[in-house]
Amino acid sequence: MIFQPPLQDSQFIAFEVLQADRELASLSSFADVDRALMAQVLDEAGRFVADVVAPLQSVGDRVGCRYDQGRVITPPGFRDAYQAFWQAGWPALSSAPEDGGQGLPVLLEAVLYEMLSAANHGWTMAPGLLHGAYECIKHHASDDLKARYLNKVATGEWLATMCLTEPHAGSDLGLARTRAVPQVDGTYRLSGTKIFISGGEHDLSDNIVHLVLARLPDAPPGPKGLSLFLVPKFMPDGSRSAVHCDRIEEKMGLHGSPTCVMRFDEATCWMVGEPGRGLGAMFVMMNAARLHVGLQGIGLLEAAWQKAQAYSLERRQMRAPGRSKSAAEADFIAEHPAMRRILDTQRAWIDGGRVLAYRTALELDQAKHLSVTDPDAAARAQRWCSLVTPVLKSAWTEQAFVGGSACLQVLGGHGYVSEWGIEQIVRDARVAMIYEGTNEIQAIDLLVRKVLADGGQGLAALLADLATQLPADHAGHARIQRLTALTNALVRATPADASLAFEVADDYLRAVALVLLDWAWARIAATPGAATPRWQDAHRALTRHVLPEFDMRLQIIEARCANFHESAVA
Amino acid sequence: MIFQPPLQDSQFIAFEVLQADRELASLSSFADVDRALMAQVLDEAGRFVADVVAPLQSVGDRVGCRYDQGRVITPPGFRDAYQAFWQAGWPALSSAPEDGGQGLPVLLEAVLYEMLSAANHGWTMAPGLLHGAYECIKHHASDDLKARYLNKVATGEWLATMCLTEPHAGSDLGLARTRAVPQVDGTYRLSGTKIFISGGEHDLSDNIVHLVLARLPDAPPGPKGLSLFLVPKFMPDGSRSAVHCDRIEEKMGLHGSPTCVMRFDEATCWMVGEPGRGLGAMFVMMNAARLHVGLQGIGLLEAAWQKAQAYSLERRQMRAPGRSKSAAEADFIAEHPAMRRILDTQRAWIDGGRVLAYRTALELDQAKHLSVTDPDAAARAQRWCSLVTPVLKSAWTEQAFVGGSACLQVLGGHGYVSEWGIEQIVRDARVAMIYEGTNEIQAIDLLVRKVLADGGQGLAALLADLATQLPADHAGHARIQRLTALTNALVRATPADASLAFEVADDYLRAVALVLLDWAWARIAATPGAATPRWQDAHRALTRHVLPEFDMRLQIIEARCANFHESAVA
Repeated sequence: MIFQPPLQDSQFIAFEVLQADRELASLSSFADVDRALMAQVLDEAGRFVADVVAPLQSVGDRVGCRYDQGRVITPPGFRDAYQAFWQAGWPALSSAPEDGGQGLPVLLEAVLYEMLSAANHGWTMAPGLLHGAYECIKHHASDDLKARYLNKVATGEWLATMCLTEPHAGSDLGLARTRAVPQVDGTYRLSGTKIFISGGEHDLSDNIVHLVLARLPDAPPGPKGLSLFLVPKFMPDGSRSAVHCDRIEEKMGLHGSPTCVMRFDEATCWMVGEPGRGLGAMFVMMNAARLHVGLQGIGLLEAAWQKAQAYSLERRQMRAPGRSKSAAEADFIAEHPAMRRILDTQRAWIDGGRVLAYRTALELDQAKHLSVTDPDAAARAQRWCSLVTPVLKSAWTEQAFVGGSACLQVLGGHGYVSEWGIEQIVRDARVAMIYEGTNEIQAIDLLVRKVLADGGQGLAALLADLATQLPADHAGHARIQRLTALTNALVRATPADASLAFEVADDYLRAVALVLLDWAWARIAATPGAATPRWQDAHRALTRHVLPEFDMRLQIIEARCANFHESAVA
Repeated sequence: MIFQPPLQDSQFIAFEVLQADRELASLSSFADVDRALMAQVLDEAGRFVADVVAPLQSVGDRVGCRYDQGRVITPPGFRDAYQAFWQAGWPALSSAPEDGGQGLPVLLEAVLYEMLSAANHGWTMAPGLLHGAYECIKHHASDDLKARYLNKVATGEWLATMCLTEPHAGSDLGLARTRAVPQVDGTYRLSGTKIFISGGEHDLSDNIVHLVLARLPDAPPGPKGLSLFLVPKFMPDGSRSAVHCDRIEEKMGLHGSPTCVMRFDEATCWMVGEPGRGLGAMFVMMNAARLHVGLQGIGLLEAAWQKAQAYSLERRQMRAPGRSKSAAEADFIAEHPAMRRILDTQRAWIDGGRVLAYRTALELDQAKHLSVTDPDAAARAQRWCSLVTPVLKSAWTEQAFVGGSACLQVLGGHGYVSEWGIEQIVRDARVAMIYEGTNEIQAIDLLVRKVLADGGQGLAALLADLATQLPADHAGHARIQRLTALTNALVRATPADASLAFEVADDYLRAVALVLLDWAWARIAATPGAATPRWQDAHRALTRHVLPEFDMRLQIIEARCANFHESAVA
């Protein structure tokens, strides 16, 4: 079966649970954007995803990308689909109208990319990188560079890359050695090798715009010595630049996206932004990029769930407990408790994740559009994005892999066989736990760089906000209080124990994820129309099988804090 | 890097922790088997694994098996390695001397197969199926059949298959439709299609012996209508039999092992055992086969750990917390707490799993060799195997996948790339959660068919035995008491709630796994020589990061029991 865009569910969460149309109406930029318009855009997006992108998922994995003497040939159908995609305006959905975009809310882009990733993660990698490049050029490039590249990248006519990693420098970009030497004409010559470059070379678009981290000759070592440069595949005069794809990687999955080793051989380029500010310029869109990866997790889990759910409703195996003998010789797999539990538990993660991801998309727009008119509201929105995004990225990409694997289990041996397509989803999903900052780095980002950095105040304020939205007798109040108290204990304990926060960061992120998920489901449960088995079964699975992890995580962290106090006293 | 047989660790656990030589000395069959002999056998096994089998792991995945008009060509080197393997006597290590075997303890076979699976899971599938076939023929076949096949299968000169699954019948073998029609000469003609047949066709050995479940024409429906038949690839007169491989499956991993669709086209065959007793004959070796799969889990996790550990000690990324600046520009990945935790936690599972698996191998020999001289001891050994084997199979195959994935994470982007070989381990490992009874079926087997079937008495006795081996102040006593009490509650609650046991079986199995793992580590900790960081770091990870799951699992089950009581009262 091919992925079916879950438009009804997505719209229920966006418009009924989150009342997105009312939220957005308060922003002047979206005065003309009503629910009917948004629903129409999403319906068209769903049609494009289902008709054009989803049918290429299997060929993307089976045939994959091919390397031939510096060229990369993408799987059959990929280029046509991409050309149709950008010409229909989809990459520019929420880009600014003055740059060639449609100026629509980030929420629509979020739903679009969730569906695209679910339908065909490999293909979606190409346009998925455009948005960061667009914002980076828009906010940091010179007017000359913008004149040449901004519209092309905003519309997606030309695709873009982010060239960060080097053979010896992965998570630690400060170790990067690529060099850029200034020329008398104001350009630079850039030399070095970058690895793991998604879409470094391909045939999807007529040009490729590389954004590359490198050092000026006199730059200091470490991250503050990095500047950002723009290197096009084809120069403005049409000649080929000195950028070479030396190889594409064989990998676990994501075969539809070429992962390139890129060699820059005194390539002519231009600086983007200020010297030594390369990391800052590249990370301007970090929250948006990480939200995209979280949405990949949600989408891939939905795709795996759809396959498992369909299989469980068409195949009979053994007698389910408590069923009397029926005419059929066995009961549906969906009727067996162990399988029902797997399916309902994934729905709890998918639906709750959607609430959080769509909410984050709304907050991104508020942070952007209210910064002048209502700076307090913009700061609150920024706080949400800052704290929730690493959680979405980490917890939901992990769930895409382990929950996707659980869905595979529903198919038994057929799940392990490529024919059914679910093992591809599990393989593809695995990479999302690594890229855009590994999940462990997300956890450190959350606890060390965000929560502890302000003494826990930002998170406490966010949790207090959430608590006001829970029913008075909701069990989530106790969890929020316990998490807040634990956060205060960590704030007190960490100055004397440099390792503590790093050791418990993963547990802490999981605990925050569960509190957020619980809140999301409280919002769903309070929405008219959610009192049906469709939503209630997943909510029950959340309570029974997902939330108990909260106590375990807190127990782990509390035990570690207790150890600390003992050893501090001893 | 290529897998290094961990002989020192395995021997420490077998001989120091479990005192296997002293245990085995009490069995008259092994009067001549002392520690020096066993150590010598294991050393030779380790050399064979490292020199012959491990180097073929990557080609097994990359080239894989190829199908060509009914023939299956295994990857380059596979046939030579297999021929060397059986000619050196390895398949017959613990087979009876009168059948051509060496009559050595099952423990040695267990360590051998753990190493083989770690080195090359795909290749090891072929000999891994021999042992069940050997026992099946030995205990159920007629003297005529034994004369023709027993020695060939015992020595591994001919490989064997188990043909159970059909296109519509996976876990539920009772639905199988393959038919066998008796002939006047005492043979049968067997017709039908079997799927997921590991090694159904290949070029490793000169003949293949298929053991096939099928129905006689007058057989009743369901599992009691199944009989077992032996169908050779080549008939005794050298002619090819009517067994055809129609296809091999593309799958997530395990490309070195051909997964075949086998068509039997009125194939001449012989019945093994009694009519209608086919399932019983095939499952005679169920505990041994499931122990083998548990050992695959342990071995694959060790293989993944070795790659992650090596990578973490050779690559530097960022400054680890609490480290002052050293000469190097960054610290080793192994020094970062989040990575150290992953590595130590997998060691906790590997080492503890080894204690349990090797103990189970010793119990298998005791159950076999004491059945006449000390039936009580044999019954206790049988109880251990019956209760511990499904736990080993389920919990350790799951850990091979999720823990293997965690080890992959240590390599970051390099983990996702095929070059490093760790993603292959994760893909290969996934199948072990499915075959030989899915992990969910193991959980139902444990709770419903074993624990609840005798009112919880067998497990209570086993746990009481374990408790006597724990230090008086060990936290495991409280967990054992809580698990025993919960088991009693389930015994009382299940008669009125048909679904309850099936809904909580997975949690129950995890809780038992954690109690067993805790006991295993108490045994390690009590062993002279274990007071080193090598063992203590893993033990600490067990306490900090693994055992807290026990409370969570009990909380989940207890909440479900409470629900039951409420609804029973209402």
